[in-house]
Amino acid sequence: MKKTLIALAVLAASSAAMAQSSVTLYGRLDAGLGQTKTTINGVGEKQVGINSSNLNTTYWGLKGSEDLGGGLRANFNLQSRFALDTGAVSGDMFSRLAIVGLSGAFGSVDLGRNYTAYDTLRSATNNVFDSNFATNSAVWGNGIADYSLRTSNSVTYTSPNFSGFSGAVGYAFGENKNVATNVNGSATDTASLHIKYANGPLLVGYAYQEEKQLAVANVQDKNKYNLIGATYDLGVAKIVGSYNTAKNNTLKDKEYSVGVSAPFGAATVAAGYSSSKSEGFNANNKGTGYSLVGTYDLSKRTTLYVGYMQAKTQTVNGSIETKATNVATGIRHTF
Amino acid sequence: MKKTLIALAVLAASSAAMAQSSVTLYGRLDAGLGQTKTTINGVGEKQVGINSSNLNTTYWGLKGSEDLGGGLRANFNLQSRFALDTGAVSGDMFSRLAIVGLSGAFGSVDLGRNYTAYDTLRSATNNVFDSNFATNSAVWGNGIADYSLRTSNSVTYTSPNFSGFSGAVGYAFGENKNVATNVNGSATDTASLHIKYANGPLLVGYAYQEEKQLAVANVQDKNKYNLIGATYDLGVAKIVGSYNTAKNNTLKDKEYSVGVSAPFGAATVAAGYSSSKSEGFNANNKGTGYSLVGTYDLSKRTTLYVGYMQAKTQTVNGSIETKATNVATGIRHTF
Amino acid sequence: MKKTLIALAVLAASSAAMAQSSVTLYGRLDAGLGQTKTTINGVGEKQVGINSSNLNTTYWGLKGSEDLGGGLRANFNLQSRFALDTGAVSGDMFSRLAIVGLSGAFGSVDLGRNYTAYDTLRSATNNVFDSNFATNSAVWGNGIADYSLRTSNSVTYTSPNFSGFSGAVGYAFGENKNVATNVNGSATDTASLHIKYANGPLLVGYAYQEEKQLAVANVQDKNKYNLIGATYDLGVAKIVGSYNTAKNNTLKDKEYSVGVSAPFGAATVAAGYSSSKSEGFNANNKGTGYSLVGTYDLSKRTTLYVGYMQAKTQTVNGSIETKATNVATGIRHTF
Repeated sequence: MKKTLIALAVLAASSAAMAQSSVTLYGRLDAGLGQTKTTINGVGEKQVGINSSNLNTTYWGLKGSEDLGGGLRANFNLQSRFALDTGAVSGDMFSRLAIVGLSGAFGSVDLGRNYTAYDTLRSATNNVFDSNFATNSAVWGNGIADYSLRTSNSVTYTSPNFSGFSGAVGYAFGENKNVATNVNGSATDTASLHIKYANGPLLVGYAYQEEKQLAVANVQDKNKYNLIGATYDLGVAKIVGSYNTAKNNTLKDKEYSVGVSAPFGAATVAAGYSSSKSEGFNANNKGTGYSLVGTYDLSKRTTLYVGYMQAKTQTVNGSIETKATNVATGIRHTF
Repeated sequence: MKKTLIALAVLAASSAAMAQSSVTLYGRLDAGLGQTKTTINGVGEKQVGINSSNLNTTYWGLKGSEDLGGGLRANFNLQSRFALDTGAVSGDMFSRLAIVGLSGAFGSVDLGRNYTAYDTLRSATNNVFDSNFATNSAVWGNGIADYSLRTSNSVTYTSPNFSGFSGAVGYAFGENKNVATNVNGSATDTASLHIKYANGPLLVGYAYQEEKQLAVANVQDKNKYNLIGATYDLGVAKIVGSYNTAKNNTLKDKEYSVGVSAPFGAATVAAGYSSSKSEGFNANNKGTGYSLVGTYDLSKRTTLYVGYMQAKTQTVNGSIETKATNVATGIRHTF
Repeated sequence: MKKTLIALAVLAASSAAMAQSSVTLYGRLDAGLGQTKTTINGVGEKQVGINSSNLNTTYWGLKGSEDLGGGLRANFNLQSRFALDTGAVSGDMFSRLAIVGLSGAFGSVDLGRNYTAYDTLRSATNNVFDSNFATNSAVWGNGIADYSLRTSNSVTYTSPNFSGFSGAVGYAFGENKNVATNVNGSATDTASLHIKYANGPLLVGYAYQEEKQLAVANVQDKNKYNLIGATYDLGVAKIVGSYNTAKNNTLKDKEYSVGVSAPFGAATVAAGYSSSKSEGFNANNKGTGYSLVGTYDLSKRTTLYVGYMQAKTQTVNGSIETKATNVATGIRHTF
């Protein structure tokens, strides 16, 4: 009997050894049949095809965590986004994520190319599961360009959880002082933070991000983003909502987003709506968008989906109307 | 006690490996000493060097298969081709293969960048093991460009095996409607199919592929490929043969290929010959090529090889004669 | 008996998994906070940021070794260098290393893109652990460009160890005969060798490398590098030193480097100094540099570091003075 236990212990230990392995190879693959159409003042063509990253972005990556003793860990994560329909990398090799750092009782510090602290709350409160059908990124940023999700040359501190409260601050160095495209000599760094409270069904938080812009006429401007967002899980459904302002020296946008998702066994349906309105001299800029998404889990790792997203925006003080629709059905597989 | 030791040995052995079930990392590496020479109407230089992908293309990849229950599986495969002599990726990152799909009793459906259904029969009936010494791709496509092995934005259905009969159909969306380079507004999609019968020593099949071309003078043309191919394993030797026509609105080529390979213990020798002849206004286009290849297996995963290939083609109605020779000896290793 | 079967079943299951362990995924990640400043004749800006590869170059890779029996092995190694602060690949995908080969009692032969045989001794005798804070590459190559660490299209033979003596020879084919940029028709190949004696605390060796240059006025020149280097481990400290000459038809440089490193428990401190002096018509070219580096091992795989390097060079016969400083503190993690 003891030997059986040893053998079983070996089996168990083998699984443990796997978890202890110094690197994990992982990924997410999303492909489906889709139709996209973008018209600018009524002119545009629809394209039908096999598209990638419809529900979620396709990537592969390497990650690991080493126990250094005393609660201290060394952590890393490298993630490479690509288009499954063509095989091409999107951007630089590991431009989706490239970090190394330490974590412990103090929280964690990560160095490299990383999501901003603002993005953490933004993605947690985006509608339709923060999927690529989410309307926020399609509509927000109608006047001022939408925020940068990730920044290179960054350091991020994430706090531990204090009775539901947690936060993070991030800073990304510009590393471009005094270059020809940056005439006033300051680097275009980016700073961000968030603070949130998560307890039981509730998540609520505030996030801020500011991005220095390349100087125009020797005046360097900053785009500033202020976000309040929340989610509440009622059990039969989860509701999400967020409100954001984006402003710089000359422009200001007010933006909000709401959404709801409801599980039905292995299926989930979700709907989302976003709106954007500019103020001041581009006051006729505005945008709205909505989404409907359904998913069905074949397993924990494999999901079928169908989704629809439509966004309509008016820019250049309302003179240019852009209408984009995207409908797709496909499969998402993780490994 | 001995059993405990076995168990402990297992424990030790497991900690190193115990591959994660969800993904397999694999590859094929081919490098050797080679000489290539290409002359056009007698002018050209030979180059000697360490070359890659002499016998087979060098790549690495990720693949996996998840059991979803009831015979259903989710499958994926990502493959990145590169030059072992320089370390450079050839084309896009996973442009050699990037698919995700489902398989079951119904067969399989794969989405992404994939081999065409025509290619399945073509590669199965190419001479000299469908290696890079095979003469088909060097000689066929003398008038009309040779077919596309792989297509992006594709969906492929592969049937189950019915008493030796099986088939596949593939469709690749053009996704380039109404762009400047495609004036008549249709996307340049590609369709393909094959049907084959494989039983015991015999494989015989038919394959078809058509590729829409970018429009010239608002007339969109198609390149159409019709292939009949077969292999027969006599035991002492395996013979392969295929016949192909390629045509569009203005050109037509007739092409055939034959080959034989024979095992001698761990060694195998193979020879191949291909021919191409055009008709109509480019009737003086023609090409011939032959190959000799020898391999020696050091193990299931590691093979030494030596190969020679020579191809001579006449194009532009016979006015340009191109002669290419390639000789190489090296090693192929798979992992 | 049943228990034995369980144990054996575990063993069998493990072996199956082991059989798949034909490849090891590995890497090294280095990121930290750094300040770099380069001034040319006094003009330049300092940049502060999160930098990568401060102590050691960041990369990931795949490697493996197959036992072919009789002492023979097939080996491969693919290594991809990238910037952890941006996620971007540096150069071609596997341009840091891409080799396949065989090893046995005869030594080893590797084909592909590889370090030169000269580099083996150079890196073994560079100061401050051959880290990126080493002064050699910053100062040497002041007149004649410093040697190529790696070459594509190469074959390398490494001898076995004969009572402490070992050596290697490498040859990299130019593969660029008679191209427009190479008017005299010869390929720009690179040849290298080293011989060294390593026994107990002592390592001493000689290395040579010659690199054919693109022809100027139909005369093809060679850069020739002659290196003598040694290290001696006193226990309380390890000292390194090397002397190099670089010359071609018109230029000659004399260069030396010294260094010392000393362990203090988990910490190590190291210092290095390098010097370069040209002769002949560019006799006013010269350069000096020094480094100070401290490391602290949190584990075998994770190290904290701080380093400083300063190099001052005079080129174009002394008319251009370049001063570069680099200071950084960060973390290096291997997996």
